[in-house]
Amino acid sequence: MSETLRVVKIGGNVIDSPESLSLFLSKFSRLEGPKILVHGGGKEATRLSGQLGIETRMIEGRRVTDRATIDIVTMVYAGLINKRIVASLQAAGCNAIGLCGADADVIRATMRPKKPIDYGFVGDIDPQAVNTRFLDILMTDGITPVICAIMHDGAGNLLNCNADSVANAVAVAFAWQDPVELIYCFEKEGVLSDPEDPASVIPAIDHANYVSLKADGVVSGGMIPKIDNAFSAIKRGVKSVKITAWDKFDQECGTTVKA
Amino acid sequence: MSETLRVVKIGGNVIDSPESLSLFLSKFSRLEGPKILVHGGGKEATRLSGQLGIETRMIEGRRVTDRATIDIVTMVYAGLINKRIVASLQAAGCNAIGLCGADADVIRATMRPKKPIDYGFVGDIDPQAVNTRFLDILMTDGITPVICAIMHDGAGNLLNCNADSVANAVAVAFAWQDPVELIYCFEKEGVLSDPEDPASVIPAIDHANYVSLKADGVVSGGMIPKIDNAFSAIKRGVKSVKITAWDKFDQECGTTVKA
Repeated sequence: MSETLRVVKIGGNVIDSPESLSLFLSKFSRLEGPKILVHGGGKEATRLSGQLGIETRMIEGRRVTDRATIDIVTMVYAGLINKRIVASLQAAGCNAIGLCGADADVIRATMRPKKPIDYGFVGDIDPQAVNTRFLDILMTDGITPVICAIMHDGAGNLLNCNADSVANAVAVAFAWQDPVELIYCFEKEGVLSDPEDPASVIPAIDHANYVSLKADGVVSGGMIPKIDNAFSAIKRGVKSVKITAWDKFDQECGTTVKA
Repeated sequence: MSETLRVVKIGGNVIDSPESLSLFLSKFSRLEGPKILVHGGGKEATRLSGQLGIETRMIEGRRVTDRATIDIVTMVYAGLINKRIVASLQAAGCNAIGLCGADADVIRATMRPKKPIDYGFVGDIDPQAVNTRFLDILMTDGITPVICAIMHDGAGNLLNCNADSVANAVAVAFAWQDPVELIYCFEKEGVLSDPEDPASVIPAIDHANYVSLKADGVVSGGMIPKIDNAFSAIKRGVKSVKITAWDKFDQECGTTVKA
């Protein structure tokens, strides 16, 4: 490939609403050129856990994933959500294929060390463990990969991973060979200089203004790991990272993180 | 391909026991040549429905699949069971990929007419709707498809299908181009002339002795649709259909149905 590959990541804010998901997928299906969709889980897994009387434990925003919980997230992420997305994309004329990391050994992860915190069946990904060769075969054939955040360790264990990190690893893996744009869709218009004002989108962040945005407290809290993650992708060759509203990801708006 | 393609189907009797599944998959991973695994659901979906307070309704052995039930079977068949199988095969050195019908548009189904019985999201498959081209791309690349019985209609609906029929349709679709052996794994040693005697396996059934086996009542009940299904595959070009024990499917035993 020499065209720009777009890696688009969506999370719960899109997935949890059938109307939002449908609108997003109709836009995504019309996006031209090679593309990969990475999706997170949303509230469905927590809801199902609750119905089954399984306690949901989060530590620092990560789901503690015991045996019962990896079964639930595998059902919900790799089953229900992934196949719903694929069937909808097919109906919209986009030839999609749903994948977890184990499928065609497409992404391996390493189980997180048990110390200091035992997260259970939770994994971390190295971009070197992304099977770009197979993803290339698919895309060359006009097929769009739809990847959920359930990976495997090669020893038979399925592992729950962070969807932002999956998108990052996929983008970085392709950046070694192709121009890549990584797009994080979320509920706001982009990185805002005033959290109360949707019109206050910061159009571009580079290393220089990021330092002052952090120093001034404009960028804080949960936005810091998101932007750090974006810079780590840029540093490893991704052309640009866009943080934008899920219903406008295909337009010239949002915040672009650049070198 | 010119080698014989083996399409192997497993059901609940293998899937419901982790030990049986593990033994089966270790044998399946060692099977040489091109191969496709088709799996049914087992009791997990019924168990999950029960835990969620959703009534399981069966009519003539088919699950009535309302909106809540299609979500459950999608979670269990396309999520939990399919990905467990794929991760285990990967660990055994077999590069597997899990697919539902919507993935890469691999198999389309038609929603069953609402009359005389409304089964809900239940579909029937035509071998012409099997995307052998894509399955060939995978197998040529050394990848083994693992297909669950959740299909799609191309209009965004996921449909619950009969796994025996999926295996049959896949085998017939390939029989137009390659020699195909279809293997149904089940809990008995084969078709028995005495149901109480596991050693009474009828090694071969052809049209002539099938008529007398039915007339004599040796073959009756649930075995009749299984054998009819086998003959329909033979009539449409499949080389042979084997009905055999799931733990001996790789050996010279069981019942072979031939033209």
